[in-house]
Amino acid sequence: MEVSTIDRPLFENRRERLKALLAAEGVPALLVSYPANRYYLSGFEQHDSQCNESVGWLVVTAKGPDALFTDARFTEAALRLWPEEDLCVYGAGKHAAMAAFLKDRGVTALGFDPKAMSVYDHESLREHFELTPAGGLVERLRLIKEPGEIELLRAACGLNHRIMRALPDVLVPGMSEADAAWQIERLFREAGAEGLSFPSIVGVDKNAALPHAIPGDTKISRDCLVLVDTGCRLSGYCSDQTRTFWVGREPSERFQDTKRLVVNAQKAAMEVIKPGVKMAEAYHAARRVFEEAGVAEQFTHSLGHGIGLETHEGPSLAPRTEGEFKPGMVITVEPGLYDPAWGGVRWEYMVVVTEEGCRAL
Amino acid sequence: MEVSTIDRPLFENRRERLKALLAAEGVPALLVSYPANRYYLSGFEQHDSQCNESVGWLVVTAKGPDALFTDARFTEAALRLWPEEDLCVYGAGKHAAMAAFLKDRGVTALGFDPKAMSVYDHESLREHFELTPAGGLVERLRLIKEPGEIELLRAACGLNHRIMRALPDVLVPGMSEADAAWQIERLFREAGAEGLSFPSIVGVDKNAALPHAIPGDTKISRDCLVLVDTGCRLSGYCSDQTRTFWVGREPSERFQDTKRLVVNAQKAAMEVIKPGVKMAEAYHAARRVFEEAGVAEQFTHSLGHGIGLETHEGPSLAPRTEGEFKPGMVITVEPGLYDPAWGGVRWEYMVVVTEEGCRAL
Repeated sequence: MEVSTIDRPLFENRRERLKALLAAEGVPALLVSYPANRYYLSGFEQHDSQCNESVGWLVVTAKGPDALFTDARFTEAALRLWPEEDLCVYGAGKHAAMAAFLKDRGVTALGFDPKAMSVYDHESLREHFELTPAGGLVERLRLIKEPGEIELLRAACGLNHRIMRALPDVLVPGMSEADAAWQIERLFREAGAEGLSFPSIVGVDKNAALPHAIPGDTKISRDCLVLVDTGCRLSGYCSDQTRTFWVGREPSERFQDTKRLVVNAQKAAMEVIKPGVKMAEAYHAARRVFEEAGVAEQFTHSLGHGIGLETHEGPSLAPRTEGEFKPGMVITVEPGLYDPAWGGVRWEYMVVVTEEGCRAL
Repeated sequence: MEVSTIDRPLFENRRERLKALLAAEGVPALLVSYPANRYYLSGFEQHDSQCNESVGWLVVTAKGPDALFTDARFTEAALRLWPEEDLCVYGAGKHAAMAAFLKDRGVTALGFDPKAMSVYDHESLREHFELTPAGGLVERLRLIKEPGEIELLRAACGLNHRIMRALPDVLVPGMSEADAAWQIERLFREAGAEGLSFPSIVGVDKNAALPHAIPGDTKISRDCLVLVDTGCRLSGYCSDQTRTFWVGREPSERFQDTKRLVVNAQKAAMEVIKPGVKMAEAYHAARRVFEEAGVAEQFTHSLGHGIGLETHEGPSLAPRTEGEFKPGMVITVEPGLYDPAWGGVRWEYMVVVTEEGCRAL
């Protein structure tokens, strides 16, 4: 996200909501170590430099000032969005520096996310703090998108629509899956995306049956199906869409039949999605369409997932997901049918849950 | 890395060396959870899908067969390089599935890397296993590159040389830093790179003084300096190079003087790098050049870092690094001088430590 778009009150408002949650849960202060959560609450750096290289942590207190911790490489970036008196720049002794800074403020107990803290950091921090597991709190806020977030997701998804519309002219016989993936990425970047939200899947015929196909040397032929699952990051927000194209003359009967089933399953799922309905119901609605056609065993994954600052976030639309749909959730609805001996068809929308039902972005 | 280049004996040989290390350290079995280590030892998936979404773990035993664990999305990919009888595909109950699979083989105690295991995973695994911290073992192997790895690093670095040579024609007045960064990425990708090894830094004038500048709207002017720090991934291996260009007519005197100092510091460091010399010496050799010129306080970071499957890996060339250079290490040597009121110059080589000294790739 460009520095110019950083909107301090937006992040302050999110921290206020977290503070209320912390007070309700009896957590005096929360250490936010997961990058997307840090960014959601502060606007500071959406990504770590590597998975094992944090660029900083945030501490949000139930009552009182919050604190941002980073190293000298990021001082300048931090000061653009964070008050200097609440910023601690650490050197080699990160945990001790944090402890000194926070003890001055009377913070000696921290909640932490067990899924986003290494055993090493935990061992080091517990020399200084009383630590209590408190995972999933920021995720609970992120589950419901603000109107501004829905607009950003719509914009990211809009880029996807544009690229998908252009693809029939791009996917031509003789082009390899890998080349097609690069052309797609180039289109996204030249249209203003910061990058892809995940490595594109481009699968020709049988390769489309691999749910995690890496685009390779296989070439688009004169008559084939091509599954494209791709998305971008725009202003920090992710898109994710799948379409399955037919290249060549008349699509094969099997392709048309499979595509019709998949699209019907998607429709069936979207018809049940509305506030108050159990999330697992959406999965089952799609699956029933496949069961009636006797192909349910070819539907090998969950129906979809939440999307926002990350491509994969809560909720997961799996058969055993608990909880109900709520307005403001943004999820993918992406049924698919796969036969390793033939190929696969997947069709994916990004969908926002509204007061009355749901709407494709 | 393309499937066709996967070389099973290479990975088996690395696991043999790890087994010897495990036996020497008294670790009966090591759980490898860090993605680059998993890939180094098995060839299975270099990256996780997100930082909080592992695509699989590896268990290497001191004596006996090894085991790979993944979920159904990756079964096909795993079977291309791993024997079926040593593969465990888990569903929702990952930790219990691992325990059942390993207990059948008599594995009930695991070493683990405290920096690469979350508190959550640790809590879940210790219901099934005796867990002992055993970090840094695979990293110890990765520190010394094999001849084949040095060739791959040379190839990745060769792409960098090619792109850096092309840049004087690319960096033209009126182009923004962000546009320049995208042109650089495009050149890398069209030349065959899988992607960038890190987001490029392109900094014009004062922006070059930010060690972590995000390329933005600032435009290249008719007379300015442009710092470019960029690298790619080629066949899985990373490159990383910085050059500082002058765009326009005659470079300013300050630019020329600063560049001369930085290049001299780099030379001074490379002259001391050879097997047996303490690694901290390289940092101090560069710093002495700056001290003699009275500008040492403008050298604000370490001298460099190891590079291989990751952009940043061991060793770190910092003032307090312990240990000595060894043949086969590949490191960056990248001194720089920064003045926020003016700009910055950094110059970076990738260097391999040889029997006699070191050589720029």
